[in-house]
Amino acid sequence: MQQVSGKERAIIEHITPQIDGGKYPVKRIVGEKVKVQADVFGDGHDVVKALLLFKHEDDKNFTEIPMKFLGNDRWEACFIPEKTGMYEYTLKGWIDHFATWQHGLQKKYEAGQDVSLELLIGAEIAESAAKFNTGEVAKTLKKYAEIFRKGKENTIEAITLALSKDLSDNMAAFGEKANPVTYEESLFIHVEYKKALFSTWYELFPRSTSETPGKHGTFQDCERLIPRIVEMGFDVLYLPPIHPIGVNFRKGKNNNVTSQPGEPGSPWAIGSHEGGHKAINPDLGTMKDFESFVKKAKDAGLDIAMDLALQCSPDHPYVKEHPQWFKWRPDGTVQYAENPPKKYQDVLPIYFETDDWENLWKELKSIVDFWISKGVTIFRVDNPHTKPFGFWEWLIKEVKKKTPDTIFLSEAFTRPRIMERLAKIGFTQSYTYFTWRNTQQEIIQYLTELTKTEMRDYFRPNFWPNTPDILPPVLQQGGEPAHIIRVLLAGTLSSNYGLYGPVYEFNIAAPVAHGKEEYLDSEKYEIKHWDWNKQTKIRYVITRLNKIRKENAALQTTWNITFAETDNNQFVCFVKTDEDKKNKILVVISMDAMYQQSGWVKLPLVELGINPELPYRLYDLMDDRQYTWHHEWNYVELRPEKIPAHIFRIEQ
Amino acid sequence: MQQVSGKERAIIEHITPQIDGGKYPVKRIVGEKVKVQADVFGDGHDVVKALLLFKHEDDKNFTEIPMKFLGNDRWEACFIPEKTGMYEYTLKGWIDHFATWQHGLQKKYEAGQDVSLELLIGAEIAESAAKFNTGEVAKTLKKYAEIFRKGKENTIEAITLALSKDLSDNMAAFGEKANPVTYEESLFIHVEYKKALFSTWYELFPRSTSETPGKHGTFQDCERLIPRIVEMGFDVLYLPPIHPIGVNFRKGKNNNVTSQPGEPGSPWAIGSHEGGHKAINPDLGTMKDFESFVKKAKDAGLDIAMDLALQCSPDHPYVKEHPQWFKWRPDGTVQYAENPPKKYQDVLPIYFETDDWENLWKELKSIVDFWISKGVTIFRVDNPHTKPFGFWEWLIKEVKKKTPDTIFLSEAFTRPRIMERLAKIGFTQSYTYFTWRNTQQEIIQYLTELTKTEMRDYFRPNFWPNTPDILPPVLQQGGEPAHIIRVLLAGTLSSNYGLYGPVYEFNIAAPVAHGKEEYLDSEKYEIKHWDWNKQTKIRYVITRLNKIRKENAALQTTWNITFAETDNNQFVCFVKTDEDKKNKILVVISMDAMYQQSGWVKLPLVELGINPELPYRLYDLMDDRQYTWHHEWNYVELRPEKIPAHIFRIEQ
Repeated sequence: MQQVSGKERAIIEHITPQIDGGKYPVKRIVGEKVKVQADVFGDGHDVVKALLLFKHEDDKNFTEIPMKFLGNDRWEACFIPEKTGMYEYTLKGWIDHFATWQHGLQKKYEAGQDVSLELLIGAEIAESAAKFNTGEVAKTLKKYAEIFRKGKENTIEAITLALSKDLSDNMAAFGEKANPVTYEESLFIHVEYKKALFSTWYELFPRSTSETPGKHGTFQDCERLIPRIVEMGFDVLYLPPIHPIGVNFRKGKNNNVTSQPGEPGSPWAIGSHEGGHKAINPDLGTMKDFESFVKKAKDAGLDIAMDLALQCSPDHPYVKEHPQWFKWRPDGTVQYAENPPKKYQDVLPIYFETDDWENLWKELKSIVDFWISKGVTIFRVDNPHTKPFGFWEWLIKEVKKKTPDTIFLSEAFTRPRIMERLAKIGFTQSYTYFTWRNTQQEIIQYLTELTKTEMRDYFRPNFWPNTPDILPPVLQQGGEPAHIIRVLLAGTLSSNYGLYGPVYEFNIAAPVAHGKEEYLDSEKYEIKHWDWNKQTKIRYVITRLNKIRKENAALQTTWNITFAETDNNQFVCFVKTDEDKKNKILVVISMDAMYQQSGWVKLPLVELGINPELPYRLYDLMDDRQYTWHHEWNYVELRPEKIPAHIFRIEQ
Repeated sequence: MQQVSGKERAIIEHITPQIDGGKYPVKRIVGEKVKVQADVFGDGHDVVKALLLFKHEDDKNFTEIPMKFLGNDRWEACFIPEKTGMYEYTLKGWIDHFATWQHGLQKKYEAGQDVSLELLIGAEIAESAAKFNTGEVAKTLKKYAEIFRKGKENTIEAITLALSKDLSDNMAAFGEKANPVTYEESLFIHVEYKKALFSTWYELFPRSTSETPGKHGTFQDCERLIPRIVEMGFDVLYLPPIHPIGVNFRKGKNNNVTSQPGEPGSPWAIGSHEGGHKAINPDLGTMKDFESFVKKAKDAGLDIAMDLALQCSPDHPYVKEHPQWFKWRPDGTVQYAENPPKKYQDVLPIYFETDDWENLWKELKSIVDFWISKGVTIFRVDNPHTKPFGFWEWLIKEVKKKTPDTIFLSEAFTRPRIMERLAKIGFTQSYTYFTWRNTQQEIIQYLTELTKTEMRDYFRPNFWPNTPDILPPVLQQGGEPAHIIRVLLAGTLSSNYGLYGPVYEFNIAAPVAHGKEEYLDSEKYEIKHWDWNKQTKIRYVITRLNKIRKENAALQTTWNITFAETDNNQFVCFVKTDEDKKNKILVVISMDAMYQQSGWVKLPLVELGINPELPYRLYDLMDDRQYTWHHEWNYVELRPEKIPAHIFRIEQ
């Protein structure tokens, strides 16, 4: 606390939300409530008051909101940020001499004691406040003082005034805040646009989009798929790297360290004589084709997410142009990249400890700037945890200065502290451990960690049931029902979710070997041909799920989850509502991909704003059936051969 | 993190201990271990290392200690502060290229792969380190490099060297720490002398020490009591205010708002025409008497604790000399002090919001300085929570600059945040809620809060079963057994404890009225006569308790408590050990002052370092009996008519 004057008596501490003592901004989206709490108190027994002050970075002045006392010296105030950018907030606290006086007067009056002296003090307070004001306000305050001065004769009138709301309101607005204390540090909130919190991702390899089997797909082929993807309800289309692929050490089918002539290689082995991170693989088309594709997608409501994989094939132009950006060994080679236990023999890592790091950083940022200039607004960042945190912090900050609506998704599947740190330093969204959370208990624990701890303020999860790198055991073993269960969990638990789409829709789930989590004949190393017209049950479920997400505000945030009790530990069962509790959703998903499950679930009716004495209606948004339930506990039966889930909208 | 170079890759965060992001120093005493933990990690998969750096304020250079990896990116290092004063500490982290290389080499070698390239890299690392060193070290490092360079021919020799402890140690000591990161903020530890954590207080009113009933006691009378108090094992003697007492509005017997002629008044109504806070009540003697008394007490091992009650009787010289230090009402009076629901009609509060606050602060500090010059080292501060926090923070800091071994005990019985704040801003010890924690569950919860949360780092409890203001229901109702139970709890749970002694020893426990917590015929308003020679069971127990505390290091700290399981919820049952686990204490206290209680208690043998397969001996330090126990669970029986507690020393 900055002690500018010994007369200051208010203390402000333990402000929430704040991350690492205010070192990093809290994250919110436009329209998402910011609830600020703090301990505010003073010495002695006088009445304390507190204000929340906040402003957008473009605003000149702070907006002030009175804080509400919650008990135990805790105070709260909320505001809703209305535009993107950085908001600053802080608190002000002071001893309210007027309220202290009013409180004391009331007690004495109610105890039948003489209050004439108190009324004279009231007159002094009102007169002092009048000095700080002019016009009508000053006049009114002086009139108050007069009434108090005559309090001995007109006690009832004076007391009535002293305890009136009018007086309280006027003094709150125009009275003196004696020796106010402002919290010593400003705290910050980074406000992003809605998609940062509510987005639905579809991943496909553009090279597998041709109508002709075996032919390399192009951006023109991709364009034809736009209506299909939009119809399924996705709003982000994420493409693995689209750059020229290296020839030396090119990988073959199934991650073979040698490739056969004609094999396309892994798109993550970026760079060849045809160019590097700012070039397009000629097999996919031209830059113009790409720009046209991005524009058409955007017009249809689909943002293109680009893969930002800051690494190079041995053939990347950087290797010759900037050898200082690589770490050379005594034998004149560079050790290939690894993300243990994975080995990327076709990829050289960038050497971030180079003395030339400033030029390196500038060049890498120019890649992002380049693609933003081509219409890209979303970057899915490949293995950000193998590049320095300081680099990302700088890059994201710099990019967001010019284009605040850029989204960076952190693809770091690694240790908790590292994933958390990447989120803190600026990544908009993050991949998670959801992919490996399978039991009811695991889901509850993980969601509680994500949504009810400090992580809620900086780590926006994006749930993926699969990726080209990860085919989890549950999908290998559970077939179509498991695919349905996992996508429904992802899309209802988390407002950001995504799928590596084609294999998922078509229920392809064979691992490369027993006990491995990689796909057999992975699309990472070969061109696939998909029957995009095939109608599957999974496709139907995904389409329906995405429609439900779009129509129900309760599913457009991740933080509002409340797990519901159930007597069946195969059920994941929770409610979500929007801020006003107008849209109420109950989700019951059976985790059993094999057998029918039944049990009882308990709705937290009071929290949902439902009268427990009256019946209420449930509309199953998956199959349009309706139910009438009574009381808290109700019976549910789910079958894997049908759709092992209910997504109910509740009304009363 | 201060980003001085883009080459920095280590992250340091979540350092503990720290209070409010480092705003306040952590508290320790000399010899008390400081255990520092932090998350330290880097991007990628290289090996990270961390150092703890610390220094005393008088030291020029930091001492560096390697931190130990605990798992999940958490690191730890400990040090023991050896002198009083402020210690500074911070952390350093870096990517250890040598250890990364060593780790990679070992893996490759064990997998039977060719390591000749790795050995060449090792040679480069050793050569690079040699450049930073001179003499023998540089020679040794160059020799290493030579061996690695010949690794292709002498693989076994090179590998043996590469994985040797010698090499590791030399590289740890002399190798390059590439791009080290130092935590951006220094953190502080305020180290005080032992009495800050281990002290035993006796409170008496000096005016009640005369051998002649009805006669006003003096400091000379007090001197005669020194051997008695020392013999009982106390090391702090706390006196209520010893200053002249006001005449106007003087309180009578039992807090009567009017007094009869000859009544002595409350010592807390400080100041009369005979002087203020720097004067002595002439009835107690002269300043010389006081100084002699303080000196004799100190020589006997007893520190005098003075009451610092910053308030004035209406007759205090300040009232006329510094009217601006009081808040005058329109009728020319000052509202008397209150600490709701208590009213102090004989006391005027000081007006800390005075414009003249700087002179006020200086004068109040001069009071403390004055008594320190008279030999006082301990201040029990009366109601610090009714004076501004900023004032105390300044006062304590200023006083401690000159006399670091001054102790300030905060007598704030108020809301948690306020009590915590006073401790944070510098009070050495604090009164607590112990006085009202009566059940097993309450004791466990409260001790857990005090010793296992962040409070442990700044709030040193001082447990008082009673004070002149507080006669809790448990003592009113429970008679002698309750007094024994409460003092044993206080003195074993907390290393700082105190008693308002005479009434406690003599089992005087009548309240002024039913449902009130004040003593009937309270010594606050009258002179008492005590039979100081009377031997009571309570006196015996206290003497024994204090002897046990002095002889057992395990009872000289509060933080080391581990509650033990028991099947009887009337038992409070815990173990404490010293740092080395040489001194092991088991305490079992029955909370039942009425009936016999028996039950089973479970010793955490492994944590105590006791082999559960072998018998172990228990010496009851209260009654010198001995027991042999086997296994974890053992039977205990306690009777209120005897001593309803065991304090065992355990040996095997």
